Amino acid sequence: MKIISESVLDEPGGIIARRFDLDVDGTTVPGMHWFPAGDTTEIGNSATVCIAHGGFQHKLYGNVPELAHQFVRNLRVGVVALDAPDHGDRIVDREAAKAARDAAVRNAADGRRGLDPDTLAAMAKRAKQHVIEWRALLDDLQTDDRWAAGPFGWWGVSMGTTHGIPVVAHDPRITAAVFGLNALQPTNEADARSITVPILFLNQSDDELMTREVALALWDAFGSKEKTMHINPGGHVQVPRFERDASEAFFRRHLLENAPR
Amino acid sequence: MKIISESVLDEPGGIIARRFDLDVDGTTVPGMHWFPAGDTTEIGNSATVCIAHGGFQHKLYGNVPELAHQFVRNLRVGVVALDAPDHGDRIVDREAAKAARDAAVRNAADGRRGLDPDTLAAMAKRAKQHVIEWRALLDDLQTDDRWAAGPFGWWGVSMGTTHGIPVVAHDPRITAAVFGLNALQPTNEADARSITVPILFLNQSDDELMTREVALALWDAFGSKEKTMHINPGGHVQVPRFERDASEAFFRRHLLENAPR
Repeated sequence: MKIISESVLDEPGGIIARRFDLDVDGTTVPGMHWFPAGDTTEIGNSATVCIAHGGFQHKLYGNVPELAHQFVRNLRVGVVALDAPDHGDRIVDREAAKAARDAAVRNAADGRRGLDPDTLAAMAKRAKQHVIEWRALLDDLQTDDRWAAGPFGWWGVSMGTTHGIPVVAHDPRITAAVFGLNALQPTNEADARSITVPILFLNQSDDELMTREVALALWDAFGSKEKTMHINPGGHVQVPRFERDASEAFFRRHLLENAPR
Repeated sequence: MKIISESVLDEPGGIIARRFDLDVDGTTVPGMHWFPAGDTTEIGNSATVCIAHGGFQHKLYGNVPELAHQFVRNLRVGVVALDAPDHGDRIVDREAAKAARDAAVRNAADGRRGLDPDTLAAMAKRAKQHVIEWRALLDDLQTDDRWAAGPFGWWGVSMGTTHGIPVVAHDPRITAAVFGLNALQPTNEADARSITVPILFLNQSDDELMTREVALALWDAFGSKEKTMHINPGGHVQVPRFERDASEAFFRRHLLENAPR
């Protein structure tokens, strides 16, 4: 992990915000690492939450740093975020990226439910690559005594769930996950069934991209004994703010329960 | 309100637990009132949560005092509970009550979904009477300066929702409600549609008494702009413990936000 820049945010207790580049088999993956100022003894735990952004968003888009600051401030955990392939600083052709986003917005406005096959194929390819990148980030974090012991959590809805399901299914270091805004698909069913860690799933009742039922079908598929679905009214990007507090309470219960405090 | 007995529970800050009888048009309605020791200035708010017990349960059954203690301890609010008609201390014929409960358990074990017409008719009659009793309790609480200003919240699942929907629909003093384990019925639809206060709804995915869908239909019917459904795996009486914390967070947001602290 190559540190590109570091700043201290003016938050109670102090939050370090680090921009880093991670080299994964020759590919540069830009990321963010937020963590409490002070050493491990002071903060009392070595947990990290991975925040995976949504489609057409990036590591510093709106809810990602806001959630990161909240988790660091209130849980005193570390938080990491990466740009997904073809997102954020990894966009090569800005015109093409804008055209793709506009097309997606048009599709949603047309009332089409579900994504087209080309988009699904591109998502599957990105997911495969990004799983490798997230696991490389966990490997890297574990070379630092401060974060090595974990536990690790996952927070990602929409595309953050598309990427999160294979990560959580195949990496036993993730012990609790917040998913949402996603549907049961042939591409995620086997992985979903193999997941057994506690899950909080955020579902929007009027999601333009899917019905409530296909999201419930994904929730049904998870093998987890503890899995809670929260349904709220509103569209795909209208998850209420108070679900951030629900996510915080979920991670407090699952990542900090056994941590020294 | 006639105080029958009073004890101080050994909890941080101190909790007063009062057994009272309320006279409602000549009928004695036994109830409980829990509240923080210390005066209003010390506790900082005048909010009260009404906890309505489930069918075949009563004002001191398991989760009622446990929830009450949690809300008083962590939110510093008052909590009240009543015995519903034909429940708790209001059971006249214990043999008949036991037979009715056994029959209900058998029906559930048979995998019958939905309640029989006789049970539904008895529930409707009890609900009508109990709504009057709850509103009389709020009237009585408002004669005490400590609790007069409210706000008032409702917590009741299963029969606690059967009784809660008409109370909340017709009494504007209730400004936030936790409902659950209940289905859309011809008897509750109009009231549900007229409710606009924030709602948290607890739904069990494997409820023996109803499908997930009829509970979702009830949630859909509420006129509230803020309404969140939490779905967990398990049967009718297996709501996870952590939903108590979710209920607490819900009331903290809606009953204490504007209260002096």
